[in-house]
Amino acid sequence: MLTLYDSAISGNAYKVRLILSHLGLSAKRIEMNVDDGSTRTPEFLKVNRNGKVPAIVLEDGTTLSESDAILYYFAEGTPYWPNDKLDRARVLQWMFFEQYNHEPTIAVVRHWVAHLGKTPANEPALPAKTAAGYRALDVMENHLTANDYFVGRHYSIADIALYAYTHVAHEGGFDLGRYPAISAWLKRVASQPGHIRITD
Amino acid sequence: MLTLYDSAISGNAYKVRLILSHLGLSAKRIEMNVDDGSTRTPEFLKVNRNGKVPAIVLEDGTTLSESDAILYYFAEGTPYWPNDKLDRARVLQWMFFEQYNHEPTIAVVRHWVAHLGKTPANEPALPAKTAAGYRALDVMENHLTANDYFVGRHYSIADIALYAYTHVAHEGGFDLGRYPAISAWLKRVASQPGHIRITD
Repeated sequence: MLTLYDSAISGNAYKVRLILSHLGLSAKRIEMNVDDGSTRTPEFLKVNRNGKVPAIVLEDGTTLSESDAILYYFAEGTPYWPNDKLDRARVLQWMFFEQYNHEPTIAVVRHWVAHLGKTPANEPALPAKTAAGYRALDVMENHLTANDYFVGRHYSIADIALYAYTHVAHEGGFDLGRYPAISAWLKRVASQPGHIRITD
Repeated sequence: MLTLYDSAISGNAYKVRLILSHLGLSAKRIEMNVDDGSTRTPEFLKVNRNGKVPAIVLEDGTTLSESDAILYYFAEGTPYWPNDKLDRARVLQWMFFEQYNHEPTIAVVRHWVAHLGKTPANEPALPAKTAAGYRALDVMENHLTANDYFVGRHYSIADIALYAYTHVAHEGGFDLGRYPAISAWLKRVASQPGHIRITD
């Protein structure tokens, strides 16, 4: 049995639940609080020395962390990881874009606005983070205007990685109404066999 | 002939030069200024819509960006990308750690301190960025205390990705003297066949 160190509010954790659902796999879910220090205890640091969820414990007891690396692990050998080497590199290109340009802006703004609330510590950084989030959405819109999915003509883990926080970006105040190609792609992703919602 | 949109001061670009050197490949290098808007011109945005270096143009004219995705593209099928699926996932785990926790702290502090100089805009953020960089170094030291390389017993693109900015971290004021395991690993990496320096 797989064990997933999970968080209901984390898009990164949702990515793992989503690929497992697509593949018909199940995991024991251990819900972690990402704001109260639970992921920094000595016990949890044995699971993930970097102190973050998601982390997954495989049947043999080994652990794996970083949401997009976990996506790769389960997708390899399935239709969610392409057959062509250049396409595989492009999947990774979009996943690194997601972790560098998209998650630290869109996910962080959502967490501040929807979960932690504005504080004297985060409020001054909000306008710049929001602007950077819109720049990431602009890059996605540009690509999706000419393409149904991020790589090739097929749904892949690049789409899963980018869907996770894009489809809840409005919770951080982002106006997705400006982005018709992204909006159409969100519907395309949600219609995939085995799709589950972040709240499922 | 490969064409690399390059930057002499960028560790991300150095990663690409390093894997090409290991593999005995060469590329035409186009030096870009990363601070004067050159990577945001309409012409360059056709190469990389995300406006960053490195970007590489392959023989058939297609482009690829994101340094760690480029590393994957060239490493697949070579000893720099492991044979075992779990090891491959761990290579990606460390590369996502690098792009999320290591590069935005250690590389950014180095750029502010060594290249741009402290400004009213970046100076208030420097202490928190530096502390986060040390946390990333702590995670690396913990791993390297028990392991010669990041994945398995072999040098891989995970080591290349993490070496790029770690070995110049002192330029941002980081004291690597505190980290004996990292210091030994830096020497191990620099002794690999085909190694080149960031200034080469």
